[in-house]
Amino acid sequence: LHYLLAKAQVLYDFTAEPGNNELSVKEGETITITNQNIGGGWLEAQNSRGEIGLVPEDYVEVRPWGTHRVKGAVCSHSHTRARADDDEWDDEWDDRKSSYTEGEAGEGGALNRGGQGEVGPVWEYPETQLDCVVADPKKGSKMYGLKSYIEYQVTPNTTNKPVNHRYKHFDWLYERLLDKFGSAIPIPCLPDKQVTGRFEEEFIKMRMERLQAWMSRMCRHPVISSSEVFQLFLTYKDEKDWKMGKRKAEKDETVGVMIFSTIEPEGVPDLDLLEVEQKCEQFSRFTKAMDDGVKDLLTVGQEHWKRCTGPLPKEYQRIGKAFQNLSSVFNSSGYEGEATLTDALTAAGKTYEEIAQMVAEQPRKDLHSLMETNNEYKGLLGCFPETIGVHKAAIEKVKEADKLVATSKITPAEKVTMAKRLSTMSYSLQAEMNHFHNHRIYDYNRVMQLYLEQQVKFYETIAEKLRHAHSQFTTM
Amino acid sequence: LHYLLAKAQVLYDFTAEPGNNELSVKEGETITITNQNIGGGWLEAQNSRGEIGLVPEDYVEVRPWGTHRVKGAVCSHSHTRARADDDEWDDEWDDRKSSYTEGEAGEGGALNRGGQGEVGPVWEYPETQLDCVVADPKKGSKMYGLKSYIEYQVTPNTTNKPVNHRYKHFDWLYERLLDKFGSAIPIPCLPDKQVTGRFEEEFIKMRMERLQAWMSRMCRHPVISSSEVFQLFLTYKDEKDWKMGKRKAEKDETVGVMIFSTIEPEGVPDLDLLEVEQKCEQFSRFTKAMDDGVKDLLTVGQEHWKRCTGPLPKEYQRIGKAFQNLSSVFNSSGYEGEATLTDALTAAGKTYEEIAQMVAEQPRKDLHSLMETNNEYKGLLGCFPETIGVHKAAIEKVKEADKLVATSKITPAEKVTMAKRLSTMSYSLQAEMNHFHNHRIYDYNRVMQLYLEQQVKFYETIAEKLRHAHSQFTTM
Repeated sequence: LHYLLAKAQVLYDFTAEPGNNELSVKEGETITITNQNIGGGWLEAQNSRGEIGLVPEDYVEVRPWGTHRVKGAVCSHSHTRARADDDEWDDEWDDRKSSYTEGEAGEGGALNRGGQGEVGPVWEYPETQLDCVVADPKKGSKMYGLKSYIEYQVTPNTTNKPVNHRYKHFDWLYERLLDKFGSAIPIPCLPDKQVTGRFEEEFIKMRMERLQAWMSRMCRHPVISSSEVFQLFLTYKDEKDWKMGKRKAEKDETVGVMIFSTIEPEGVPDLDLLEVEQKCEQFSRFTKAMDDGVKDLLTVGQEHWKRCTGPLPKEYQRIGKAFQNLSSVFNSSGYEGEATLTDALTAAGKTYEEIAQMVAEQPRKDLHSLMETNNEYKGLLGCFPETIGVHKAAIEKVKEADKLVATSKITPAEKVTMAKRLSTMSYSLQAEMNHFHNHRIYDYNRVMQLYLEQQVKFYETIAEKLRHAHSQFTTM
Repeated sequence: LHYLLAKAQVLYDFTAEPGNNELSVKEGETITITNQNIGGGWLEAQNSRGEIGLVPEDYVEVRPWGTHRVKGAVCSHSHTRARADDDEWDDEWDDRKSSYTEGEAGEGGALNRGGQGEVGPVWEYPETQLDCVVADPKKGSKMYGLKSYIEYQVTPNTTNKPVNHRYKHFDWLYERLLDKFGSAIPIPCLPDKQVTGRFEEEFIKMRMERLQAWMSRMCRHPVISSSEVFQLFLTYKDEKDWKMGKRKAEKDETVGVMIFSTIEPEGVPDLDLLEVEQKCEQFSRFTKAMDDGVKDLLTVGQEHWKRCTGPLPKEYQRIGKAFQNLSSVFNSSGYEGEATLTDALTAAGKTYEEIAQMVAEQPRKDLHSLMETNNEYKGLLGCFPETIGVHKAAIEKVKEADKLVATSKITPAEKVTMAKRLSTMSYSLQAEMNHFHNHRIYDYNRVMQLYLEQQVKFYETIAEKLRHAHSQFTTM
């Protein structure tokens, strides 16, 4: 297996101790991190001459991505986003109208061994997967109680030290991640903002659950989870640290398509245009088809939810009442010896009332997680058209390159560079798709199991209740 | 326990053999049958002097009921019926407008020991309960195939010899029973007539099932099942026998309120007006309340049936399709190693399609019998307002009797007779109510057991199917 790895900048000179598997590096040198999980304060890195060895973590600044900046990134369910452009990336790569900002190429790069595994290129995954718990929502206030808000406690599994964040901080993080990684990695929207009823318990619980799901998904992504801004969010030490980090992140200029300038597949051949196109087409078809499938399931699920919480329990309720009503009529017959029947009829009626309640409560137990997961995927899938659009525009430009060379608009060398960049974009997209597939399989397996498990329990409980009701009638 | 028994007319002189427990009777004498189930061609009877002994069956004509006749008896779901009146029964007993026909008092009487058991007066039940099987519907035709009809085979458990009857014969029987017993015994309507689609398999099957239920209910009634017309229907020997029997039955004049003239409680005191009124009120309240309860259950059941055969399976179908659709999208991912997930998703989808079909078919298995039974009771209960109306009118007349005596409109002796007749009607109504309660308890016990049994099976099967679907996902 090959990995897509991060580049780092050396902050101080470091001289290797001979025989200790160390690597000498000079201040300002760019190295590639081949293994971040050495532990004990060490990183494994490779220098530009191909030598590999250990370097002290403190001596380098891991900056996987460049320094460009996107303005006006917005998020909606159609996931229209502004895109970045810059000097390095030919303006004409993308001829669709977008609002670009200017900027310079960043120095950092982030990828050396874009490789092919069994499934093609994959991101490098840390040995220990980052995760965090979003919990304990607390009402806070400022300006002498004039403004109040909800603060959630976020505890990463790395430090095990909780930090507090308001929804607007999550939103800030979302904007940063979208700016920085949005062109290569789908950054799903945060749970919807809501102004009214912000402090209702049910709403806070639901928002927390969704923030948890969003954070977990971000944690599971190796590129996002290792980024400085994400780490800042999870592990800032104090208010000052947080504010300084925020300011720095907002000045980060490696945003938009600049992300690709920080990725550099090594040890693998450049992909030819045909293969790039085929992969792009395949991903485009798949994400479109899955988007349709997910939306279909959501529509069906919503309909079913409505029925399960509305007319269906009402009907079971009415059946239950009808049995109980008949029982009390029978009780008034004045005929001796029908207590067994009337008791059993009452019990059967009550059983159907219990079933009514079970039916009404069931969607929260099973359909809920199925819907939440599919909603998450709907959000993710909504990001792909943009990513694939950037990709397709790049493909078109490379296709036109010969003509541009012929009319001397670009040099043959520039044409080679363009093709190389497209190859990098394709490797990156493939790695991202493989990441997506891998988690998709895990998520759907898990959620389907959960759903069916709860469904089995539900029907078994009903059967059990009815069996008991049945046993109360006399066998004749 | 006391019984309500049938009277019989002696056809020929019979001289008892001493020491053989026989009873001497004379032609024309009226005797009371105390036991019809002696067997071997014998009946046990009591003469007017109170002597009890065996009489040959062939020597007497068991005519429990008189010979008056009702015209224009109609059946609708509101069970408005024309009522009979006659010379013996004071016209003024019933001052509501009805179409009466004239007639003479019949000679026969039918009741000697109207008695009080634990539950009050009950009809005498035969030791072996009559029953019959309605089966084997066959298409027949007449007029050289110009007219075709369906003939059902009816086999009573007494002769075990099948007789054939068309729907119109059942309808004829219904009319006879209604004329003859309708004032004292609820005679439920036959299943609805239907002109179009008479030969469709489903319709014929349903009609047969309902004719079976109707016949079984009639068989279970001791007064009806022992009547000549009912016996004719079940056991006629040939076409000639049937036609003669029919003619005779149509001439039967013991119809309408005349039925009460054939009932004579013996060995029990006359009931006083207060008790009669209380009983009547109680039955009126009960049958009204049960009618409401049954109709309510039917409404709820119909609603539920609609949902179970309409929107609900469609929804499960859509859930099933959505899972299968997602599975086939996943299959197109090009990503290796997700066959387990896609196979499991497809299986889950198919399971929900199976559940859809189960849901749609379930009402026929459980709700059906619950609805049929309640429909039968709706029919029965629809007959009571009429019966109770006759009863209440009689009560009013007895209440006015003092005034009528004072104004010399009736003699004091006639007043006594009126009170005695009302007492007989009350005993008769009580016996009928006890019959009703007894069978009601049996029927509802049985149908609820059937319903719940099928419901348990249904939910267990679903749980089992889902458990299997669940097992196909990999545990991670």
